[in-house]
Amino acid sequence: MLSIGVDIGGTKIAAGVVHEDGRILARTSRRTPATDPELIEGAVIEAVRELQADHQVVGVGIGAAGFVGADRRTVVFAANLAWRDCALADDIESGVDLPVVVENDANAAGWAEYRFGAAKDSRNMLMLTVGTGLGGALVLDGNLVRGEGGFAGEVAHMTAVPDGQWCGCGRQGCLEQYTSGTALVRAGRHRAGTGHELYAPLLAAAGGEVARIDGPLITQLAEDGDTGAVALLAELGEWLGFGAANVSALLDPGTIVVGGGVSAAGELLLAPARAAYDRHLTARAYRTVAHFAVASTGNEAGIIGAADLAR
Amino acid sequence: MLSIGVDIGGTKIAAGVVHEDGRILARTSRRTPATDPELIEGAVIEAVRELQADHQVVGVGIGAAGFVGADRRTVVFAANLAWRDCALADDIESGVDLPVVVENDANAAGWAEYRFGAAKDSRNMLMLTVGTGLGGALVLDGNLVRGEGGFAGEVAHMTAVPDGQWCGCGRQGCLEQYTSGTALVRAGRHRAGTGHELYAPLLAAAGGEVARIDGPLITQLAEDGDTGAVALLAELGEWLGFGAANVSALLDPGTIVVGGGVSAAGELLLAPARAAYDRHLTARAYRTVAHFAVASTGNEAGIIGAADLAR
Amino acid sequence: MLSIGVDIGGTKIAAGVVHEDGRILARTSRRTPATDPELIEGAVIEAVRELQADHQVVGVGIGAAGFVGADRRTVVFAANLAWRDCALADDIESGVDLPVVVENDANAAGWAEYRFGAAKDSRNMLMLTVGTGLGGALVLDGNLVRGEGGFAGEVAHMTAVPDGQWCGCGRQGCLEQYTSGTALVRAGRHRAGTGHELYAPLLAAAGGEVARIDGPLITQLAEDGDTGAVALLAELGEWLGFGAANVSALLDPGTIVVGGGVSAAGELLLAPARAAYDRHLTARAYRTVAHFAVASTGNEAGIIGAADLAR
Amino acid sequence: MLSIGVDIGGTKIAAGVVHEDGRILARTSRRTPATDPELIEGAVIEAVRELQADHQVVGVGIGAAGFVGADRRTVVFAANLAWRDCALADDIESGVDLPVVVENDANAAGWAEYRFGAAKDSRNMLMLTVGTGLGGALVLDGNLVRGEGGFAGEVAHMTAVPDGQWCGCGRQGCLEQYTSGTALVRAGRHRAGTGHELYAPLLAAAGGEVARIDGPLITQLAEDGDTGAVALLAELGEWLGFGAANVSALLDPGTIVVGGGVSAAGELLLAPARAAYDRHLTARAYRTVAHFAVASTGNEAGIIGAADLAR
Repeated sequence: MLSIGVDIGGTKIAAGVVHEDGRILARTSRRTPATDPELIEGAVIEAVRELQADHQVVGVGIGAAGFVGADRRTVVFAANLAWRDCALADDIESGVDLPVVVENDANAAGWAEYRFGAAKDSRNMLMLTVGTGLGGALVLDGNLVRGEGGFAGEVAHMTAVPDGQWCGCGRQGCLEQYTSGTALVRAGRHRAGTGHELYAPLLAAAGGEVARIDGPLITQLAEDGDTGAVALLAELGEWLGFGAANVSALLDPGTIVVGGGVSAAGELLLAPARAAYDRHLTARAYRTVAHFAVASTGNEAGIIGAADLAR
Repeated sequence: MLSIGVDIGGTKIAAGVVHEDGRILARTSRRTPATDPELIEGAVIEAVRELQADHQVVGVGIGAAGFVGADRRTVVFAANLAWRDCALADDIESGVDLPVVVENDANAAGWAEYRFGAAKDSRNMLMLTVGTGLGGALVLDGNLVRGEGGFAGEVAHMTAVPDGQWCGCGRQGCLEQYTSGTALVRAGRHRAGTGHELYAPLLAAAGGEVARIDGPLITQLAEDGDTGAVALLAELGEWLGFGAANVSALLDPGTIVVGGGVSAAGELLLAPARAAYDRHLTARAYRTVAHFAVASTGNEAGIIGAADLAR
Repeated sequence: MLSIGVDIGGTKIAAGVVHEDGRILARTSRRTPATDPELIEGAVIEAVRELQADHQVVGVGIGAAGFVGADRRTVVFAANLAWRDCALADDIESGVDLPVVVENDANAAGWAEYRFGAAKDSRNMLMLTVGTGLGGALVLDGNLVRGEGGFAGEVAHMTAVPDGQWCGCGRQGCLEQYTSGTALVRAGRHRAGTGHELYAPLLAAAGGEVARIDGPLITQLAEDGDTGAVALLAELGEWLGFGAANVSALLDPGTIVVGGGVSAAGELLLAPARAAYDRHLTARAYRTVAHFAVASTGNEAGIIGAADLAR
Repeated sequence: MLSIGVDIGGTKIAAGVVHEDGRILARTSRRTPATDPELIEGAVIEAVRELQADHQVVGVGIGAAGFVGADRRTVVFAANLAWRDCALADDIESGVDLPVVVENDANAAGWAEYRFGAAKDSRNMLMLTVGTGLGGALVLDGNLVRGEGGFAGEVAHMTAVPDGQWCGCGRQGCLEQYTSGTALVRAGRHRAGTGHELYAPLLAAAGGEVARIDGPLITQLAEDGDTGAVALLAELGEWLGFGAANVSALLDPGTIVVGGGVSAAGELLLAPARAAYDRHLTARAYRTVAHFAVASTGNEAGIIGAADLAR
């Protein structure tokens, strides 16, 4: 039984025909046409029709950034794509004659990890995607958690530090401000800017310009053993472990999957995360302790997960 | 279709025959025999047999304090009742010839609210029980959340304040240390002990003895309009709203039910909780906002919920 | 006995002949010549010579932004004026044939308040200057506090919130990030940007553009009674009171003088500051409680204080 | 020129004749007569007369726990000794015919360190006494800081963590709750009580009884290299360094002297304190950095300092 998964990103619409074992059998993509909702829908329909031509599929799953309604048919709000209460599923169905479900992109990627990736042996998963921001997805007892209005999974906006760093969401101290690519770069720039000798190699590697410090540079120096860069990633990992322990107190997941660009740092991030998780987890000596794993389904997780959700 | 619910508390074992509409048709109770697991099991069996005599029931649900295994048959750990990995369901089944399920008592009470009480129109509920401590229960998409090992729902031990007040769980800053009966009394005693005039009426009402300040006294003074007592309850409510907003970022519940002894303070607690929830909820202007309600199933929620879970 | 005070600011060098009762008898000023230390020194010498022509003076006091050495002759570091270990007193003395003392500008202004302004009846003063940033000055037992290396008075960089908002100094949670003009504007923009109705009037007053919200606009709306703007200033005041209580635990000042541009908001800032001070002050019921007052020596405090320090 | 120093403690009144080089030439002591102010004064007079018999002295300095008035003659409030507004200097002078000055005991001990001990080469000193609680004393530009009402030096009650651990002073998050003997024991007991294996050796050393964990036991295990105990002292040291950095931002001391019973742990406490100080100190790369030293005047610092203040 095949289905089509579509991942609508800010620059690219990627689509694929996905087997029920998670393999992608065929692919196509389009550039995302600016931020015009109608043009985007047109491009999605075109991509689906192209894939339909050669494969018998039972449905289409679409992953999109933003808040997706609990009915899984509507995009309520998407900051980057100018969608407000867009009836995406209806519009696509009218063009492709297949049942369509819509899902938040982080949820779709998380579902792929649950079904085919690092969490496939677990019934209860927390996925944390440490990219520019911090994404989250939850599977509990085998069900993707969507909440009353489809807003569940915003682990990024749980409060880590009351009255802490201001967040783009208009509140203070959100976890995303402490564990994300943005947080990593911010910390690196501030610390290097103090003139402290611990961060001198990082500053030197950035040609002496604080503004040229970025995530890949920090990770690279950390991999080369630079103490300051290792400390920056460790701090990020500690907040990740802290956040995961907080979620675990509430939900007791069996597996915690860490994905996103920053997870490329591997154990430089995960070892401090596990240590902090161990320290912050309540009743740690009497309970199941979740397994931390790096995401394994890669860049196409969104396509794979969305397709699977359409079955 | 009738079933029996049993609520094993520290001092009393209460049991009842429960109709599928949530009504209790018959009741019995026993004193809890100290902390001897076998004697407790004997008393439960006795109570169930007594109720079985007059009613045709399909099963038994037992609510017990402590961590209950994910199989819903075993008590893994119960601080007050000396249970360690006790095969409670097996033991009771062998005595009453009925299928038995075991559930954490806060979960059982939460389930009653979900099925018959303040959250009966919602598919996604967070219940916060503000008693001596802080209890929690979660229903998501109509399912009681239990987690990988049955440890879910410990909202009490989410971190509210990093490096905050030490908690009996051995960690710092747990939400329970900020919003619970214990937290209320601690704050009242400390504040009154400073000699600050704002708390002079409270101290006077306690006969000038800080150690005689307790929860009911604070609530009573607040109901009479005493500024200091109102402020103490408001602070408790603010942390309750803060904690609820944190859970909402992650899970997006439709209804938040507040129960437990301290909830008797009603709007003195709930109004500040709603205001803080409104202030701390991420994306508040674009999303569903949960409804706060006081628990309505009362003291017998544990019996009702446990019985319903047995069906 | 007359002396000359000079206030070197980022855009203007202002100088005056000051009587020992604090009155300014004559004034002159120059534009600050970019950030070339030598040109600045030349302009200061010129200004002093002009004032010397008509008045018999005994010395020159110079207030300058930045860290001034404990010998009161050297500017160790000044972010805005490109000074590094500049022998300012030596250089000026060689041009004007008068003894010269150099002082940090916030200290000079604080000294004016202590000698002639809001703290003139106190032997122990904390001054908090809430402008774009947060300045501080301390007088203890009648002596200006300078510290071992001249770095004292940096109340701005006491930690208010561990792991809080990043500060330009490269650390997190500095008090300046919570109570300063910059903090006020940042809070206003973030809050208004959430779309929360409480801040809708503020957003409207800024023509719907978050980036046009600034300090004077917030103060003006607050003076007109707008609830959101009043709340923003109150929050700033609460942190001011918190910070002042922290300093008071350590130093027990008799008067706390609040100056700087934001202090124009008067009681909208000071009333919440006093309330928070009262709440956070240790042993409040058994001790002297400092008097909060608004600075009274105005824009020329730097000139007056520097001149007085030169006597 | 000789003077007499008296240290009034909860159990013992110790007095000595002190040379102006800081040496104690003669000693005597009395048991503290319960908490009757008059009996205590009688015992002090008796002790002074005994020492006067054999030595020509110019005055008497008395160190007493509690708040001492800014006139250095009156004990305003002393929790342990039942003093309220006691005219101690007047009363003693009437019995010994010598000028008397009274000083807070932590200030007296701090003064001894400044004059004869670890800070004798500094003009600006912060002393932190880590005993059961946390004491503080400040010398700035060679003057003991007393504040407007004599309440200065309460570094213990600066806020380290907003909404943190409740303090006996009736407020939350005081530094004393994070770095003191009491804090060390509290942390050790809570951590060991979780059953975490890191603290198993500590628990074993306490015979398996959490309540038998105390400060000397933790220090001893740490000296033997136990990882858990080392971590507990390190955490205490980190807060000590954090607190010292906060004071340094404000006052820029040249020397930070660490005394009190917990300072016996030496580098196990001081090395983490220095590292945290380095991390938290604002403008660290551009400024004088204070020297951390262990107190060197020992148990009789109170006598020595009080005597010196009487000259």
